Amino acid sequence: MAQVDPVFEAAPELEIAAWLNTPASLRLANLRGRVVVLHAFQMLCPGCVLHGVPQTQRIHDLFAHDEVQVIGLHTVFEHHEAMREASLKAFLHEFRVTFPVGIDRHANGDGMPLTMARYAMRGTPTLILIDRKGRLRAHRFGQAEDMAVGAQIAQLVAER
Amino acid sequence: MAQVDPVFEAAPELEIAAWLNTPASLRLANLRGRVVVLHAFQMLCPGCVLHGVPQTQRIHDLFAHDEVQVIGLHTVFEHHEAMREASLKAFLHEFRVTFPVGIDRHANGDGMPLTMARYAMRGTPTLILIDRKGRLRAHRFGQAEDMAVGAQIAQLVAER
Amino acid sequence: MAQVDPVFEAAPELEIAAWLNTPASLRLANLRGRVVVLHAFQMLCPGCVLHGVPQTQRIHDLFAHDEVQVIGLHTVFEHHEAMREASLKAFLHEFRVTFPVGIDRHANGDGMPLTMARYAMRGTPTLILIDRKGRLRAHRFGQAEDMAVGAQIAQLVAER
Amino acid sequence: MAQVDPVFEAAPELEIAAWLNTPASLRLANLRGRVVVLHAFQMLCPGCVLHGVPQTQRIHDLFAHDEVQVIGLHTVFEHHEAMREASLKAFLHEFRVTFPVGIDRHANGDGMPLTMARYAMRGTPTLILIDRKGRLRAHRFGQAEDMAVGAQIAQLVAER
Repeated sequence: MAQVDPVFEAAPELEIAAWLNTPASLRLANLRGRVVVLHAFQMLCPGCVLHGVPQTQRIHDLFAHDEVQVIGLHTVFEHHEAMREASLKAFLHEFRVTFPVGIDRHANGDGMPLTMARYAMRGTPTLILIDRKGRLRAHRFGQAEDMAVGAQIAQLVAER
Repeated sequence: MAQVDPVFEAAPELEIAAWLNTPASLRLANLRGRVVVLHAFQMLCPGCVLHGVPQTQRIHDLFAHDEVQVIGLHTVFEHHEAMREASLKAFLHEFRVTFPVGIDRHANGDGMPLTMARYAMRGTPTLILIDRKGRLRAHRFGQAEDMAVGAQIAQLVAER
Repeated sequence: MAQVDPVFEAAPELEIAAWLNTPASLRLANLRGRVVVLHAFQMLCPGCVLHGVPQTQRIHDLFAHDEVQVIGLHTVFEHHEAMREASLKAFLHEFRVTFPVGIDRHANGDGMPLTMARYAMRGTPTLILIDRKGRLRAHRFGQAEDMAVGAQIAQLVAER
Repeated sequence: MAQVDPVFEAAPELEIAAWLNTPASLRLANLRGRVVVLHAFQMLCPGCVLHGVPQTQRIHDLFAHDEVQVIGLHTVFEHHEAMREASLKAFLHEFRVTFPVGIDRHANGDGMPLTMARYAMRGTPTLILIDRKGRLRAHRFGQAEDMAVGAQIAQLVAER
């Protein structure tokens, strides 16, 4: 009798207004076969600046890029005027962030951006893991420990 | 024969475009009798965000405000577009900075602001200590250790 | 054509004078099927106390014990009088170390203990990873980062 | 009318079984004119190893030794067998402690040592500050912040 995989939810596609740190746009649909680490942050969120962003950079530095695609998602849902693209660019430069970052698109007005809403995120920082088949495998709001994050990503990498 | 105090340089006056976290403007000339701790920072300078600003907040929290006046000085000399007043306001709010902050004034154009130039600062973070008589007593670029900073301020407080 | 596994060295057996934090002795030979994390330390080695031992405790707390067996190895090669069993017991109690610890046996005299010599360890802390088949897969002297350690253990766990 | 100093308690003399890191015994009675920083610790107390002892070393490194005398007091009140002099010596060597350390004397049996009892200490780490006149000025059980400690010592140094 055939082994049936557990059923996981498909990860919703990203809605990005602009990309930084990457020559080309990224789409989840094109990343099948790789593990995707999606880190939602705001450049003026202390938990992101002090913990989430440096942790995500460590993920980007540790794992092979043909196995694991790290994506930062700038999900501005407050202080919109304070975190425009020019400020984000300077932030990424000064804090030496080298992984691709997409600016989450707003439909209209200044509320929660589209990707953030699709994923029903509760705030920032949020860490989301998507497996090689494009399925949501982890969704964590707040701080996660490096060892557990490293182990969970490696486990997804090991799935063939 | 009379003991002569060492001669210290008078601290130049501040040139501030706008004040935050204070109901009234602050002038060094009006702060004689108090020790002044001047912390020059930029909201997107990692050494400021991770070290200098939290240390300055600890100074503000530790010392009596009628003995020690803490002043943040936002000395933007790069990425001007990225660190406008709206961004600074959000930064102070999110990082729970409660000491008064003055935005260092630019003469014209976008180079080094006026107070930063008057003090011949080399960059951010810079910590400056001014004694009860308005004289420059310490000027430090980069990170300083909490214990040494606490000791030096207490020493100035003890001078009557 | 058959896929041939890379050839790894078999991990040498432990030579233990006494066990702490475990009701029964542990032998690598009996641990086939599980990943073994071997942490060699000395209770008065600062790099062990400040980094290696707490990291090893985090490994013990994170991974399922039927998948990953954590073993501390007290490899005293200096200050022998200072790190007798009574001192080690108090150390483990005070620092809340709960993983099993074996005291590496000395042949005679006070030089390097037997297991440490068999593994050709260069000092403490040393972290050694042994796979489900009892083969040496990692040997690291000094500090390792949590994320990399978590990833490497998870990778070995994923091997079936 | 004469200004009357507040009345502070005289600091009890130390009762030391053996001294380490100093060529000569130290007595509080001989240290009048200097501020004395007394740090009571146990070499297997995590709060001491991780916080108190390194902080005390920073005090020793920061202040002039003719103004501030730092003294470590090894107050063993538990696990006596585990923290004999040979173990303490190795600890001081490995953790690069260079300030003088006195081993608090036990009357008989293995309970609380004499100096610890005289000062009515509640445990370790405990930080005690004694002014130039030999009077108790601060007594703190647990962790103290570097900035506050530095300020308090500097304040006592400034008293003439």
